[in-house]
Amino acid sequence: MKFELIAQDGRARGGRVETEHGSFDTPVFIPVGTQACAKAVTHKQLKEIGAQIILANAYHLALRPGEDLIAEFGGLHRFMSWDRPIITDSGGYQVFSLAQMTKISDEGAAFQSHIDGSRVFITPERSIEIQERLGADIIMAFDECVGYPCDKDRAAGAMRRSLDWAGRGLAAKTRKDCSLFAITHGGVHADLRKECTESLARMPFDGYALGGLSVGEEWEQTSEVLALSNDLLPREKPRYLMGVGLPQNILDAVEQGMDMFDCVLPTRNARNGEAFTRNGRIKIRNEKYKRDGAPLEEGCDCYACRNFSRAYLRHLFVADEILGLTLMTQHNLRFYMRLMEGIRASIRAGRFAEFKAGFLRET
Amino acid sequence: MKFELIAQDGRARGGRVETEHGSFDTPVFIPVGTQACAKAVTHKQLKEIGAQIILANAYHLALRPGEDLIAEFGGLHRFMSWDRPIITDSGGYQVFSLAQMTKISDEGAAFQSHIDGSRVFITPERSIEIQERLGADIIMAFDECVGYPCDKDRAAGAMRRSLDWAGRGLAAKTRKDCSLFAITHGGVHADLRKECTESLARMPFDGYALGGLSVGEEWEQTSEVLALSNDLLPREKPRYLMGVGLPQNILDAVEQGMDMFDCVLPTRNARNGEAFTRNGRIKIRNEKYKRDGAPLEEGCDCYACRNFSRAYLRHLFVADEILGLTLMTQHNLRFYMRLMEGIRASIRAGRFAEFKAGFLRET
Repeated sequence: MKFELIAQDGRARGGRVETEHGSFDTPVFIPVGTQACAKAVTHKQLKEIGAQIILANAYHLALRPGEDLIAEFGGLHRFMSWDRPIITDSGGYQVFSLAQMTKISDEGAAFQSHIDGSRVFITPERSIEIQERLGADIIMAFDECVGYPCDKDRAAGAMRRSLDWAGRGLAAKTRKDCSLFAITHGGVHADLRKECTESLARMPFDGYALGGLSVGEEWEQTSEVLALSNDLLPREKPRYLMGVGLPQNILDAVEQGMDMFDCVLPTRNARNGEAFTRNGRIKIRNEKYKRDGAPLEEGCDCYACRNFSRAYLRHLFVADEILGLTLMTQHNLRFYMRLMEGIRASIRAGRFAEFKAGFLRET
Repeated sequence: MKFELIAQDGRARGGRVETEHGSFDTPVFIPVGTQACAKAVTHKQLKEIGAQIILANAYHLALRPGEDLIAEFGGLHRFMSWDRPIITDSGGYQVFSLAQMTKISDEGAAFQSHIDGSRVFITPERSIEIQERLGADIIMAFDECVGYPCDKDRAAGAMRRSLDWAGRGLAAKTRKDCSLFAITHGGVHADLRKECTESLARMPFDGYALGGLSVGEEWEQTSEVLALSNDLLPREKPRYLMGVGLPQNILDAVEQGMDMFDCVLPTRNARNGEAFTRNGRIKIRNEKYKRDGAPLEEGCDCYACRNFSRAYLRHLFVADEILGLTLMTQHNLRFYMRLMEGIRASIRAGRFAEFKAGFLRET
C-alpha cells in the first residue's frame, strides 16, 4: 500500500491510497459491506455510485460462510467478485456489540456466535489469520472496545490490552499485500488516548484508525480526541475514523486531518425510509410526499433522483417493495459520495472551509 | 395497437405488437410488476434482462396508491418512469384470489380490500375507468374467476357473467390508446369455453386472453382448452394465456398458437431461492452448493451468472442479504427472456418443434 498526500488545506488533507486492487482518493467514505456485499445494491450499482473501496467484516465472515471457504475461492475479492480495494474490520467492535456471553482475557476474546450460539475464541493472532485468509487490502488490528460512559480504569485496561494486541497482530502478520492498520483507544480520556496514540505511532503500522468513538459520547468530546490525534499521528500515514458518521461529523473530522470514514448510516437509514439531502433528511413514508413529484434531492445525479419522484418512492415503501430499499440506498450512498467528492475538490482548491460552511448552511 | 403476424410454424406464431410506448415481439413473456414495479429489480435491470413489456395490476393500484394519484402524475408510465409498454390486469382474478368477504352480483364485485379491510365495489365499467386512468397500453376486461374443480352450473354462470361484463367493458371504453383484451372463461368445460370464445371473437376486442386456467387443473386439461381456443380465436389478434407459467407449459402453449404469457414464477421462485436453469431447477440454499464455484447456469449471460458463483449466491441467501433476491430475480427473468428469444428465433426459422424438443430433453 502506498499513501500519497496530494493537498493540504489547514489540517484537512487530500490524498490517494494505492493498493494491489487499485487506488482510492481521500478523504474517502467507505460503504459498509459487512457480509461480503453492500445491503440492497449490486456491485455494479456501487460502482455507478462511485464507491472506490468497501468494508467487510472478519467477524461475520469467519462465522459465515467461514474464511476457509472464502480462501478456497482465492480470497474475498474473488469470492464476492469485487475487484476494487477492500478493508476488513478485525472483529473487535463486533465482539463488543454483537457477541453474547463474552469473556475477554489478555489472551483474546471468547464469546458465543450471534448466529448459532457456538463458542468462538478470537485472539489478535487469529484475527490477523482470518483477515489474511480473506485477503483484504487493508486489515485491522484486533482490539477491545468499551462503551460510553466508561470509568477510567476500565478504559485504561482496554486501551493497554488493545495496545498489546496491536503489537501481537503486527508480529503475526505475514502477507505483504495486506496492509495493517492499528486502532487507537482510550475513550475520551485525553491522557489515555495520547498514551495509546503515541505508542502505536512508534510502531510500523500502515495506517491508524481511531476506535472506541461513536458509542454514545458527545461530538464535542470526539472532536477533542480528533484534535489530539491529528497532532500525534504520523503525517505520512492515512487516518481512519471508524463508524463516523453524519455528514457534519465527517466534515468536522476532515477539518481535523482525518482521511477515511465508514458508517452504516446511509445504507441503514435508506432501508428505514430516510434519505439524506442537501436540505435535510426526508422520511419518505411521510404523507406529505404522497403527491410530491420532485426527486429526493434536486440536482442529485443518482439513478433514483434521475428517474423517480418522491411520490413513487413513497408508494414503493408503503407497498413494501424491495425496489424502494434499493433506490433509497443508491441515493444515500451517492449523497455521501458527492459529499466526499466536494470535500476532496475543495481541499485541492484550498477552499475547504468555505465548502464546509456552505454545506452546513444548506442542511 | 397494431399486431403483425410475421412467421408461422405449425400453429406456433411469431409476431410483433406495436403500441404508443413502443413494440414487443411475440411470443412474449411479460414480467409481473403488480404494484408498479417488478419485485427486487430496478427498471434498468429489467431492460438489461430484455423485458419489452410489464404487467401491473388495476386492483392493487386502485387500492394503493389509488388511480387518482397515478392519473395526476400523467398515468402509470410517468408515475413509475417506465417508457415501454404496460398491460394492466382488470382485477377480476384478484377479487377471486385476494379479496375478502366477496359478494358478486350481475352488477359487479363487492369485497373488502386485502390491505385495509375497506369496502370496495368494482363493476366492469369501473375497472375500465381505473385502467384508462392508469393509461396502460393494453387493458383487460373485468371477469368473474372460479377455481378448480368447479361444477358446471357455477362455471357456466361465471362464464356468462364474464361475457356480459366484457361487452359492458367494451361499451365503457373511451381511450383509443388503451387496447382492450377480452378474457375467455368456461373452465375446462369444452362446450362452455367454446360458447364464450365464439361470442367474444365476434366482438371487436383488440386481443383475447384465456382466463380461469392455472387454478389447479391438470396441464392436459389446459392443453385441450388451448387447442379449442386456437381454432376459434381470430388469427389476426394476439392471444394471451394468463398466469402461465412453467417453461414446458409455455412451450406447449406456443405450439398451440398462444402469443403472450405472464407469471410470477420466475420472480417469486427467485425470492424463495429457486433458480431456473436449462438443466433443471436449483434450490440455492442447498448445502451442496456451498463450495460450488460454477455460475447458476453455464452459458447464461445475466449479471448474476457473469459475475457470481453458486457458493456466493448461497452465502447471500443464508445470510439473508437482499442482494441475493436481486441477483436470483435477474437470473430467472433472464432465463425466461432467453427462452422466449429462442422460441421466437426457432419459429422464424421454421424449427420450433426441434427447439421445443431440445429444450425439454435438457431440462
